[in-house]
Amino acid sequence: MHLPGFSDVVAAAARLEGLAVRTPLLWSPALDEAIGGRVLVKAECLQRTGSFKFRGAYNAISLIPQAGRARGVVAFSSGNHAQGIAEAAKLFGIPATIVMPADAPAIKADGVRARGGRVITFDRTREDREAISRRLCEETGATLIPSFDHFGVIAGQGTCGLEITQQLEERGETADQLICCVGGGGLIAGINLALAERAPDIAVYGAEPEGFDDHARSLASGQRERNARTAGSLQDALLSEAPGVMTFPINQPRLKGVGVVSDAEAMAAVAFAWRHLKIVLEPGGACALAALLSGKIDAKGKTTVIVATGGNVDAAVFAKAIGG
Amino acid sequence: MHLPGFSDVVAAAARLEGLAVRTPLLWSPALDEAIGGRVLVKAECLQRTGSFKFRGAYNAISLIPQAGRARGVVAFSSGNHAQGIAEAAKLFGIPATIVMPADAPAIKADGVRARGGRVITFDRTREDREAISRRLCEETGATLIPSFDHFGVIAGQGTCGLEITQQLEERGETADQLICCVGGGGLIAGINLALAERAPDIAVYGAEPEGFDDHARSLASGQRERNARTAGSLQDALLSEAPGVMTFPINQPRLKGVGVVSDAEAMAAVAFAWRHLKIVLEPGGACALAALLSGKIDAKGKTTVIVATGGNVDAAVFAKAIGG
Repeated sequence: MHLPGFSDVVAAAARLEGLAVRTPLLWSPALDEAIGGRVLVKAECLQRTGSFKFRGAYNAISLIPQAGRARGVVAFSSGNHAQGIAEAAKLFGIPATIVMPADAPAIKADGVRARGGRVITFDRTREDREAISRRLCEETGATLIPSFDHFGVIAGQGTCGLEITQQLEERGETADQLICCVGGGGLIAGINLALAERAPDIAVYGAEPEGFDDHARSLASGQRERNARTAGSLQDALLSEAPGVMTFPINQPRLKGVGVVSDAEAMAAVAFAWRHLKIVLEPGGACALAALLSGKIDAKGKTTVIVATGGNVDAAVFAKAIGG
Repeated sequence: MHLPGFSDVVAAAARLEGLAVRTPLLWSPALDEAIGGRVLVKAECLQRTGSFKFRGAYNAISLIPQAGRARGVVAFSSGNHAQGIAEAAKLFGIPATIVMPADAPAIKADGVRARGGRVITFDRTREDREAISRRLCEETGATLIPSFDHFGVIAGQGTCGLEITQQLEERGETADQLICCVGGGGLIAGINLALAERAPDIAVYGAEPEGFDDHARSLASGQRERNARTAGSLQDALLSEAPGVMTFPINQPRLKGVGVVSDAEAMAAVAFAWRHLKIVLEPGGACALAALLSGKIDAKGKTTVIVATGGNVDAAVFAKAIGG
């Protein structure tokens, strides 16, 4: 198994230059006060397509040899990877087919279609999305791009971590710890690659939804543990089956712990971000903030970077979160 | 009349260093695509207290001689200046009394109280807020800080413009034009001071609510024209009676025009910002974006900076805007 390293993250950053948004590292006195520590928010909701996923998607497509690339790409995703792939495919001028669960937020399916992507839905509980995706690839010669267990995807997501280290340096600051949500672990793996090289003293914590605490259990047992369910959380971006085959070996030695967050805590964090930070987060994108606000990961007197990973949420869910 | 100049903006920036947020200048490919031009968004909704007003409020209080400062400050404001004054007063450890219209958004009155400010409400249509404020000052010896017609306030707001010029330079970009909403004209006056010195080639446009187009009419007639009403728009942050005595002489020679925006257009811009930019804007804070999206100010093929000035909006209004 060929895992990406720091140089692959640097190469991805060069490819993404001028195409991905260099999202800001936000400071909010209101959040500092709520936590009793210093907090900086890497606002990936402000990324192209509304989540960090564009980084890995574009980098992965750029690694497909040109001859095969024209036949297009296939992805299975609950929606953010889907939109990242659709947007990147549009930039390359190639077709994208996305296999999405039927219960994915409408805003995410709409986002794929608006970018010219083809959406095929499946039933999360009865159908095998990987089998559907593989069949599509066999039929069309398209390349499958998994949402996290992929060399180019992990390296691409790592550019988020690289920017964090650069932005801390520009601010003349250092951080004690970083919290990032974990689904399959692709983003946090990329961030770990960047931090291991550039800021090895920052302790890295994960955050994941209650009922989908595969990383917390896998770190405890030392092997990849599966989730009992694959649906049933408002944090829809984080419902992977198990830690990745590629991502877990990168994350396992580096993760200091994982905060497990209820949907109610995630929704409260969505409301906090709306009221005080003035950024739009989806419940899964607010998972790290929720781990912080709920005290699952202690941040008193420390400097903490949290990654706010996405903001693609249906209006009804958002209105419910903010109490409107 | 002693008007502030560029050096006063530079002095304000030094006072605000480390206290005000250096808000990001955001780029969104989705917005570029919608407009058919390049757009950069100065996201002042991400400022301390959720609007740019903290800049001018803090700078103004810092200019009060220390002996008088301890007796506190008074302001009349629909809410954003109110919160800026309350937050700045808290940092100085002095009392703040805010005279607010009874129909101000609850989130703004709550924001003042949460910062330890005292709120006194008045009826927009029947009572004179200036008279109430002056009586409070006479009784307590506090200093009145107007929301726009004030040397220190204008200079403080100018730091937003100074940052825009610095951030354009950091990006290696120039802009053809800038659009900023106008209530009393304090922010755009400060921005004009900064741009006149640092980026004189950027054409500056205002944006104001339908029915409160005092600047559009004043530019046409060459003198300060009043609005017929003082209430009755969702863009509550922008309902001043007339262009300021101090701000208009600064703005008049520099404003290239004003886009007049309906509440429906402002609400559509709030929804666009939620869906595509992932920032939270109040209707008044989305006025410049609305002028852009509605085509009131042409931006095709140009590079336009818009100022997104605030994000303090009640949940019910926000939910209505996004369709939740």
